[in-house]
Amino acid sequence: MSVAKRIKTGAPTPIETLLDLAADDMDAVDAIIRNRMQSPVGMIPDLAEHLVGAGGKRLRPLITIASAHLSGYQGTGHHNLAAAVEFIHSATLLHDDVVDTSSKRRGKKTANLIWGNAPSILVGDFLFARAFNLMVETESMKALEILSTASSVIAEGEVQQLASIGNIDMSESTYRQVIGAKTAALFAAAAEVGPVLAELNDKHQRAMQTYGQELGLAFQLVDDALDYGGFEVALGKSIGDDFREGKMTLPIIYAFDQAKNKNDSDAVAFWTRVVTENAQEDVDLEHAISLLRKEGAIEATLKAARLHADDAIEALDLFEDSEWKSALAELAIFVVDRVH
Amino acid sequence: MSVAKRIKTGAPTPIETLLDLAADDMDAVDAIIRNRMQSPVGMIPDLAEHLVGAGGKRLRPLITIASAHLSGYQGTGHHNLAAAVEFIHSATLLHDDVVDTSSKRRGKKTANLIWGNAPSILVGDFLFARAFNLMVETESMKALEILSTASSVIAEGEVQQLASIGNIDMSESTYRQVIGAKTAALFAAAAEVGPVLAELNDKHQRAMQTYGQELGLAFQLVDDALDYGGFEVALGKSIGDDFREGKMTLPIIYAFDQAKNKNDSDAVAFWTRVVTENAQEDVDLEHAISLLRKEGAIEATLKAARLHADDAIEALDLFEDSEWKSALAELAIFVVDRVH
Repeated sequence: MSVAKRIKTGAPTPIETLLDLAADDMDAVDAIIRNRMQSPVGMIPDLAEHLVGAGGKRLRPLITIASAHLSGYQGTGHHNLAAAVEFIHSATLLHDDVVDTSSKRRGKKTANLIWGNAPSILVGDFLFARAFNLMVETESMKALEILSTASSVIAEGEVQQLASIGNIDMSESTYRQVIGAKTAALFAAAAEVGPVLAELNDKHQRAMQTYGQELGLAFQLVDDALDYGGFEVALGKSIGDDFREGKMTLPIIYAFDQAKNKNDSDAVAFWTRVVTENAQEDVDLEHAISLLRKEGAIEATLKAARLHADDAIEALDLFEDSEWKSALAELAIFVVDRVH
Repeated sequence: MSVAKRIKTGAPTPIETLLDLAADDMDAVDAIIRNRMQSPVGMIPDLAEHLVGAGGKRLRPLITIASAHLSGYQGTGHHNLAAAVEFIHSATLLHDDVVDTSSKRRGKKTANLIWGNAPSILVGDFLFARAFNLMVETESMKALEILSTASSVIAEGEVQQLASIGNIDMSESTYRQVIGAKTAALFAAAAEVGPVLAELNDKHQRAMQTYGQELGLAFQLVDDALDYGGFEVALGKSIGDDFREGKMTLPIIYAFDQAKNKNDSDAVAFWTRVVTENAQEDVDLEHAISLLRKEGAIEATLKAARLHADDAIEALDLFEDSEWKSALAELAIFVVDRVH
């Protein structure tokens, strides 16, 4: 049943199926998260609670939990690793909001706006270190390797994105490198540690690595499309953030390519100005969205996302059918269908 | 022979003895550092090179090398761990300079001044992640535990220090907590991993942990004294940085206590104004230094440092005499004598 049909018929949406299956595990993960964000230094739990209490979807730890079950893992190490994955993610969010000078996250004021940049940087460092404490406790050197490598790849992706801000000539291939690193690497690591904990063979590890990587790419493509087409209330974030930052994402890369191919000098001049000069006026976002719609750039981005979601689902073929396998497949559909 | 006497007689200063002993090891560490700060994302090695090439003393990795030899370790894992320790330290320097809005480090412009805050934050994250990559490669779960715990303690210390900026009522005990966490924890971890690699017993691990902790406290106390009494050229950093940031350090805590005990209302009012209002004029630093000298606050801070250096040396008693033991003892003397 498609997600749209499920919603019409009142059937649970996929994320609910997965959340039901994983409910006890996610309670355990939540308990670890809340326990390990404590510190005698009061500003740390206050700031961490602001982010954690803001009710993110906890997609990444959910992937670790589901992947461990899919792999037949019987222990409790997946709880620690799932919490570690969420801590790494939270640390990057805190630092990203400082880097992007964001003011809104998950529908609430960002930590950097409330506490300032310095505490956001340092509490991010704290959460990142705590993630490694949690990983050490699972005693899986392989999981540590996967997650520490992912962490350096994420930072590389963030720096590469930063370096390409305002660069109207950024290629689609560079863009894909950036999102593969800054977003998909953590999804991939979150998925890969499941078969690692269960001590399955390399083939299974690679399959889950692919699942996570493809899911992460789909997720980021949808996110980049939503930045030009969602609704602020539904999203809990303001639209046009990427645009105002001069951040090159696939919708703009598509539209700018189209403009060049058609020798549409007005559109070429418009995109060049808004991306490179970083001096957009209020009407520019509206004009950008109308150009993106006219060129089908949002739809093309969403279509690319759906292809990655398909690849994620295909990677699950290696595993025997189970409720966890279905839930992970449906998660991939959910990620690309949340736009509706 | 005292350090002062060595300088007079042209004998090598202790740090040179240690550097000679550790020369081959430190070359290996340097090669790892330069190799692992590479990335296809050019801004990362550029920024890392700026910091690493600025010629820090590499005290912390030196401690790891010496501690491993003192413990009779025969492998090469100490090179990786020493490089990891330096990466953790470099990451905290990058973030500290953003947090403190510093403009000078090791006699050069800070990375945040040249590249901006965002790259400094993200390259710090990259180096921190790479530190964990290096630790994973040594395959010592115990070393990973020690260094990941130290990393979260460092962040706690940094947040606690931040929260106490402008707080004229900060106690000496809180100050000692802060420097124990933000500075001494990494010295302690750097020293403790030596006997861990050599698989010596807990008693030896605790002894080296104590050596590092006490050395780190001595180091920070001297640093805090130098901020009011050193020379810009010799130090490679500007004096009065702490003062301008409203940072409470032991010299001010001593002087403010003295002022209260003597009911010196002018001095009480002065310290309260400059620390809490963060609106010092140019003459305020001069006045602060003259007050600190009058009250013997710098000397008292250096005396406290010497006591910690003594405790560091005492912790080495557990080990048999060796050139490495002498060098580590002389390092403790060097740390407190660099003021001369």
